Amino acid sequence: MTPPPYPVIRLKPKTEARAIRHGAPWVFDNELVTDRRTRALSPGSIAVLEDAERAPLGLVAVNSASRIMARMLDRDVGARIDKAWLAARLARAQALRTRLFEAPFYRLVHAEADGLPGVVIDRFDDIAVIQPNAAWADVLLPEIAAALQEVTGVSTVFKNASGRARGLEGLDDLSGVLVGHAPEGPLPVPMNGATYMADLLGGQKTGIFYDQRPNHAFAARLAKDARVLDVFAHVGGFALAALAGGAERALAVDGSAPALDLAREGAARMGVETRFDTRRGDAFEVMEALIDEGAEFDLVICDPPAFAPSKPALEKGLRAYERVARLAAGLVAPGGYLGLCSCSHAADLARFRTACTRGIGRAGRAGALIHTGFAGPDHPLHPQLAESGYLKALFYRL
Amino acid sequence: MTPPPYPVIRLKPKTEARAIRHGAPWVFDNELVTDRRTRALSPGSIAVLEDAERAPLGLVAVNSASRIMARMLDRDVGARIDKAWLAARLARAQALRTRLFEAPFYRLVHAEADGLPGVVIDRFDDIAVIQPNAAWADVLLPEIAAALQEVTGVSTVFKNASGRARGLEGLDDLSGVLVGHAPEGPLPVPMNGATYMADLLGGQKTGIFYDQRPNHAFAARLAKDARVLDVFAHVGGFALAALAGGAERALAVDGSAPALDLAREGAARMGVETRFDTRRGDAFEVMEALIDEGAEFDLVICDPPAFAPSKPALEKGLRAYERVARLAAGLVAPGGYLGLCSCSHAADLARFRTACTRGIGRAGRAGALIHTGFAGPDHPLHPQLAESGYLKALFYRL
Repeated sequence: MTPPPYPVIRLKPKTEARAIRHGAPWVFDNELVTDRRTRALSPGSIAVLEDAERAPLGLVAVNSASRIMARMLDRDVGARIDKAWLAARLARAQALRTRLFEAPFYRLVHAEADGLPGVVIDRFDDIAVIQPNAAWADVLLPEIAAALQEVTGVSTVFKNASGRARGLEGLDDLSGVLVGHAPEGPLPVPMNGATYMADLLGGQKTGIFYDQRPNHAFAARLAKDARVLDVFAHVGGFALAALAGGAERALAVDGSAPALDLAREGAARMGVETRFDTRRGDAFEVMEALIDEGAEFDLVICDPPAFAPSKPALEKGLRAYERVARLAAGLVAPGGYLGLCSCSHAADLARFRTACTRGIGRAGRAGALIHTGFAGPDHPLHPQLAESGYLKALFYRL
Repeated sequence: MTPPPYPVIRLKPKTEARAIRHGAPWVFDNELVTDRRTRALSPGSIAVLEDAERAPLGLVAVNSASRIMARMLDRDVGARIDKAWLAARLARAQALRTRLFEAPFYRLVHAEADGLPGVVIDRFDDIAVIQPNAAWADVLLPEIAAALQEVTGVSTVFKNASGRARGLEGLDDLSGVLVGHAPEGPLPVPMNGATYMADLLGGQKTGIFYDQRPNHAFAARLAKDARVLDVFAHVGGFALAALAGGAERALAVDGSAPALDLAREGAARMGVETRFDTRRGDAFEVMEALIDEGAEFDLVICDPPAFAPSKPALEKGLRAYERVARLAAGLVAPGGYLGLCSCSHAADLARFRTACTRGIGRAGRAGALIHTGFAGPDHPLHPQLAESGYLKALFYRL
């Protein structure tokens, strides 16, 4: 075997290589020898990672501008990170999704857990949207797009550069079409029998998220003949799934008029527009107004934005989740159901559950927890990146 | 309102009533004034619980023979715990299940979370099996059985007294028919498109468990055209679900010959017996033998008994889970799937996941975690009894 044509970076003498040998995917800047040669590597360079005794640990993507200075690409230092390598990873990721889903609408690549660190790819039938949230993927973007076309047959590839992680990697925020043409107008996306309208790269950039799919499906099972309230509804995620599941009526609440327009368009496509209402406004204010109106629902779901995205925001975020739970519980009919979601990294399951249970109690209600759900299986987790399990959904019966 | 015809028990002066006011369902023996009058209450008596200042907290079931000396039945001290009260609780429990499941095969009552503390009831169409695991339910068993018939229309009610909790409550272990007649031979139970044979009160008492239903369903989604290995298969839970999901073949391993007989009978009923094999033996030994034979499967699932049922057994239990994961991972084909389950109270999700990930690593494999599942929604949790969330299922792609 000829040595790889990649430069070498090395762990500091005192850095334990054990974690990396056991599968840890990241090496931080304080764990690496950062001599002039290493600092001179351009962001996104591929290198061989060695331990302090010069034993090779694998091929990594280097970015000295990032705290995550090296990301493991391949344990085999003889590998070449080229289009064929990328295609093999993509084919492997696709094999899981085609096993799980009937139609090509899913998260195709979920970063580290799919062997493509920092890379997120969502597939919408003939269109793929890449979020290259690590420098190496930005450098190899043409190769990734080409491999993606080859493996999946998509005709259009977008780059979505809006991810916050790109800032941490020192990358631009320029989104655009890499291959093919942007579709005109929003795109219908089928999930759980509902149709969602996704404005992928249009003026509103509402996009759509696949992660809640199993939780939408669970809500739909509770929805038969129910009066449903979907708070923080975005393009109608829970509301439209509930209508597909036989809900009597659904009301979607969101602060964004364009998102609610898309939700209504989805409802019209489904032929359920007569059972679908929207109310635009601040979610807390609308819930308070609904309580004042004496409104009552058989199923209420709240899927708020991340109130606790980071550790410093945790306490405040948990209070916000408790408040959501309290207001929402007050709108649930006796014997009805309440779904509460969190997409906060910092709020783990136990803390989030405590906040929700407390909020329900503050509303003078008691509930049994009937279901705990996470992001769908097209969002696999790297077992050593527990924090990547951000999405939690709790369903209570009150 | 006339005062209830129930005796009064009282919290000790220093016992915080707050937890109980906030929904805690249990009062322990060291929290109660245990004077002669209280000790004289026969096990299973209904009483009014008061705080130290004599403010009523609710109606409780008392058992001075148990560490859990009082279990909250109703916050309304004016309630009467009679057949009508029981029927209302049962009807409420049934409303959830009929919403969730098409056929009447489910856990109908899951104790505290369904408002019937210590009472577990499984429904098999026309038959209900009660586990009265608290003294009050033993006392009121005729009323519970009558209410059960009234609400559900079942013609047969069994008492299953094999639960370990009955010992802690000082109760007998005499199982038997309360109403109707025991069926002759095992009973077919449909779940996820598979048919399981349940020998409810027959000679083998294999029974059947509904808690794994959503995890069986997830495995079935991975099973199309797959070679499947189901270790600790019992009556074929994962194997038969996988065959219903289109598995090419399934091999069920278990130590119990009667359980495997029932699994084969289920497979025959499903018409998949030509794709189904069984191997009887110690699960660890069989896995080692399969590794020696060079066997390979696309989907391996291990659903062992509780290796860590209690805190003292935790470390040993986690090592056993790690060993299961290591052996099982060695039998998974490249790109295949591994499902690992724990029904141990003491091993929480994070600890169990760590043991599994470590075991997979020890097998020289790496995996992404694609799904985390719990018991199905017919096993609701009382939000303040976190330990009741015992069942965990992790699905990895290797």
